[in-house]
Amino acid sequence: MSERFERLLDIYAKTVTDYIFRMVKGRPETLHKASLHLIKAGGKRLRPFIVLATARMLSGASGEARALPLAAAVELFHNFTLIHDDIIDKDEFRRGVQTTHIAYGLEWALLAGDFLFAESLRIMEDGLERGLGYEDLGRAMLILSRAAKRVSEGQGYDMQFEKRWDVDTNDYLEMIYLKTGALIEASAMLGGVAALEDDEVINLLGEYGRLIGIAFQIKDDILGIYGDPVKTGKPIYSDLRQGKKTILIIYTLNKVDENMKEKVKNVMGRKVDEDKYREVAELIKESGALKYAEDMAYNMSRRALRILDGLDVVDDEAREALKELALFVVERDH
Amino acid sequence: MSERFERLLDIYAKTVTDYIFRMVKGRPETLHKASLHLIKAGGKRLRPFIVLATARMLSGASGEARALPLAAAVELFHNFTLIHDDIIDKDEFRRGVQTTHIAYGLEWALLAGDFLFAESLRIMEDGLERGLGYEDLGRAMLILSRAAKRVSEGQGYDMQFEKRWDVDTNDYLEMIYLKTGALIEASAMLGGVAALEDDEVINLLGEYGRLIGIAFQIKDDILGIYGDPVKTGKPIYSDLRQGKKTILIIYTLNKVDENMKEKVKNVMGRKVDEDKYREVAELIKESGALKYAEDMAYNMSRRALRILDGLDVVDDEAREALKELALFVVERDH
Repeated sequence: MSERFERLLDIYAKTVTDYIFRMVKGRPETLHKASLHLIKAGGKRLRPFIVLATARMLSGASGEARALPLAAAVELFHNFTLIHDDIIDKDEFRRGVQTTHIAYGLEWALLAGDFLFAESLRIMEDGLERGLGYEDLGRAMLILSRAAKRVSEGQGYDMQFEKRWDVDTNDYLEMIYLKTGALIEASAMLGGVAALEDDEVINLLGEYGRLIGIAFQIKDDILGIYGDPVKTGKPIYSDLRQGKKTILIIYTLNKVDENMKEKVKNVMGRKVDEDKYREVAELIKESGALKYAEDMAYNMSRRALRILDGLDVVDDEAREALKELALFVVERDH
Repeated sequence: MSERFERLLDIYAKTVTDYIFRMVKGRPETLHKASLHLIKAGGKRLRPFIVLATARMLSGASGEARALPLAAAVELFHNFTLIHDDIIDKDEFRRGVQTTHIAYGLEWALLAGDFLFAESLRIMEDGLERGLGYEDLGRAMLILSRAAKRVSEGQGYDMQFEKRWDVDTNDYLEMIYLKTGALIEASAMLGGVAALEDDEVINLLGEYGRLIGIAFQIKDDILGIYGDPVKTGKPIYSDLRQGKKTILIIYTLNKVDENMKEKVKNVMGRKVDEDKYREVAELIKESGALKYAEDMAYNMSRRALRILDGLDVVDDEAREALKELALFVVERDH
């Protein structure tokens, strides 16, 4: 990461976090606190970064100012999905703190997710005070709603895949597009909506977001096995314990012999000693799956870069930042 | 109910139900089925009725046609809240069938709710094919998002009140406005958005919806204790078992002596013999609470009628239907 990129990431993260804490006022108190629990715990704010930098790239500081409520929207939405996913996956820690349902109980966590989903759309009304019209609002809310539908479908496939062994690479790619890519795609498009009225450009931005979103999730799946839990804030091997059919597993199962296959299947979706998970992690490396997944993510990242190079922009620094982001999602260690 | 009103209720219910089944295509299969489980089981479709009749009242058949996606939106949203509320309240039956989390498990029910919430907004895009513009979409989605925020807050208060004894009538009225009134208010406003561009009229419609929404919930609380479970589709006394602080309970606790108060408190929020609940139900009648609640609901219904009388309308039949609806919500037995 260049210093400039890192600084911009920090500035945008602080801007959107401050804005969220200023604008989001839920009640009763317990609901308010449960809703903001994970947001307080941190997070990289990559999605709002994409919204703000995209708007700035295409229309400078004024576009960036109009985009702020949309940037908050995607972060609120993202946190809603984290809360509900943690309930579904029975995860107990995230961002180094207890998940919301552990800290506040299932009922409040469920409701906190619903509240954040509602707020993610409702907060866009502040755009009316910042130069967006109702028409922009309609476009923006539609983009987020379409993404919301896809995200829930992606989560559904993810759950279903845990119980299936016939999942192939295409199934996996479609699932992570829905679950992760769709919201990042929407983030780039929302930055576009705040900046201009040009469906062609907005769709290109969507393609950029889709590519880095899928690359981001592939990297996430890699970090879930090879990452440092201290840096990622997530327990290691939880994907294996839950039987998640990531590209690493799909590729490995296709490469190894029946004997090895059985060994992997006996570990997946079960709570076993860490040694057993570590053996699978080794096997994934040996089978070439790790390399395959890394290459695929890099490829997508490069395609995303080229899309940005083809755009007419007013702020070249913002474009450079978005290009760095495309590399960051595949090179990060957290 | 007049025959004409009943027929219109049926027609609109069928129209919106068919539309929903045609338009909502979720995946994977389990998510799709879980999402439509309660919608299939029935329901009066009062909220879509309000959307469609309001639009028709103000702008005739063309407004009604534009309003159909918005009518579907409020029904989808309503069903999302039912699914999640049933999880929170641990209810096992609704509309005479198993609740979604009993039929499909917590994880799929949680996700089905999220999916319906997303679809409730996403489906509005079909309005673009029916004469609504992006600007109308922006207004409509904002109305629904604001309601969504309130509904989750209302559910939060409802949960909180179960554990509190200091809830007064104003707390109760605010809570049921948020939990039930806000979505019915939004329904009337959405009909207005499909019909015309006049914030003053749209706000009056909101006031009509708010009043009948609150009246509806008061009646719901009455039916929860005095209704016939076969007709309501809900188990009797579940509000008492869950310790819900309805207006019936609040009023009764204010009227009876300390001795009786303790008796009521010992039953509320506990699973006891049906006899004990029946005694509380008797006491509520004797204390005058039932009469008080019925009067309050009737009053609101009458105020709602007067709002409609003051409007300039193009379809008087639709106005009559909405007036009958205002009476129906307080006179119904299911």
